[in-house]
Amino acid sequence: MASPSRFPGRDTGDDPPRRPSGRRVDKAATRRALLDATLTLLADRSLDNVGIREVTRAAGVAPAAFYRHFERIDDLGVVLVDEVFSTLRQLMRDARDDVVTADDIAHRSVTALVRHIHDHRTHYRFLVREQYSALSGVRTAIRTELRLFATELATDLARLPVTSQWPLRDLVMLADLIVDLMVRTAQRILEAIDEAPEREAVLIEETVRQLRFLTIGATAWKPRT
Amino acid sequence: MASPSRFPGRDTGDDPPRRPSGRRVDKAATRRALLDATLTLLADRSLDNVGIREVTRAAGVAPAAFYRHFERIDDLGVVLVDEVFSTLRQLMRDARDDVVTADDIAHRSVTALVRHIHDHRTHYRFLVREQYSALSGVRTAIRTELRLFATELATDLARLPVTSQWPLRDLVMLADLIVDLMVRTAQRILEAIDEAPEREAVLIEETVRQLRFLTIGATAWKPRT
Repeated sequence: MASPSRFPGRDTGDDPPRRPSGRRVDKAATRRALLDATLTLLADRSLDNVGIREVTRAAGVAPAAFYRHFERIDDLGVVLVDEVFSTLRQLMRDARDDVVTADDIAHRSVTALVRHIHDHRTHYRFLVREQYSALSGVRTAIRTELRLFATELATDLARLPVTSQWPLRDLVMLADLIVDLMVRTAQRILEAIDEAPEREAVLIEETVRQLRFLTIGATAWKPRT
Repeated sequence: MASPSRFPGRDTGDDPPRRPSGRRVDKAATRRALLDATLTLLADRSLDNVGIREVTRAAGVAPAAFYRHFERIDDLGVVLVDEVFSTLRQLMRDARDDVVTADDIAHRSVTALVRHIHDHRTHYRFLVREQYSALSGVRTAIRTELRLFATELATDLARLPVTSQWPLRDLVMLADLIVDLMVRTAQRILEAIDEAPEREAVLIEETVRQLRFLTIGATAWKPRT
């Protein structure tokens, strides 16, 4: 199994600007250990079925250490959501830069997403499962990130010749369809990784075709006023 | 809160053809009670976080009674999946019968789905959450039902003038996009019911527009050989 996370330790918000003291390094390391231990526990569990004591035991820290970083397991889940989306959004912006054709954008976006899933598969497994989480804080965080994602995409669509005259409502409609397709693709790629790796190439081809369908469909769409 | 289920008690596979004995009626009633108790427990939990003892306690039956109906909690989950899809598939077939225009089919299908969600909201909440279940049996059952659903839809699409010349691959592509939209709509409608009922009318309008986009997009699509 791959390392549970390749994200670097994240800023805890109170690190000094340079040469952190040993204690502060420990603090960041503990936080990272708690996040990684949770991702490992989530391999075949839901977050609402993971206890704080289990997390601290798996991270090799005292139970009280948890509360120096998070109030509840939900807060830790929200940090995991933030980690994956912050890098993914940048990646997708890059994939849409300097694009020549719609086919090009479709292929580039899907390839970038699939690479990101491979690099952060424990994060994605968590995301895909917890978008319908029993924990409302985590569910809301994922929903908000997906909305932000769709809004950025709608802004980019507004610059394309075929959609530049569309009202915002229709831009958001198309962006939502594309983001939903990406979410569904993430789910399918994860299943393929676990169960049938030989399916992955076909899945990528199918997703590129669906994305092309959506962009070509846009040429036939007449927004109603 | 609404009654956890309005599905009738289901055939247990060994009922006599008429005038069931008291014991057999009890057996069917116990099975129904176990299913309904689980749905109630799932209001804010994942199925992998629900124990058999909790289910039997909530159903008011002895723990051993569970094993006369199901081997594991997963089996009970699969029955819940089957309950909702068997009625939904019929409903969607009805919605597509005798349809005049693409707009008509879009509006009828979305309306039928939303009504079904309202009538079986605890089942849908379970379905939406458990499509990424930590329990692989339940996850597979939901995936299989969605695939069957998409296959039936692809068969219907093959009869429409605009798509009748498409290869199967492209029919399935469009059917998958439509089914994914329906799944996403179910999630959004459930959230609206819980959190912002006034959003529901807007959601329905948005979904009808997305479904229209997909059917209109089909007129611009040129399948590649």
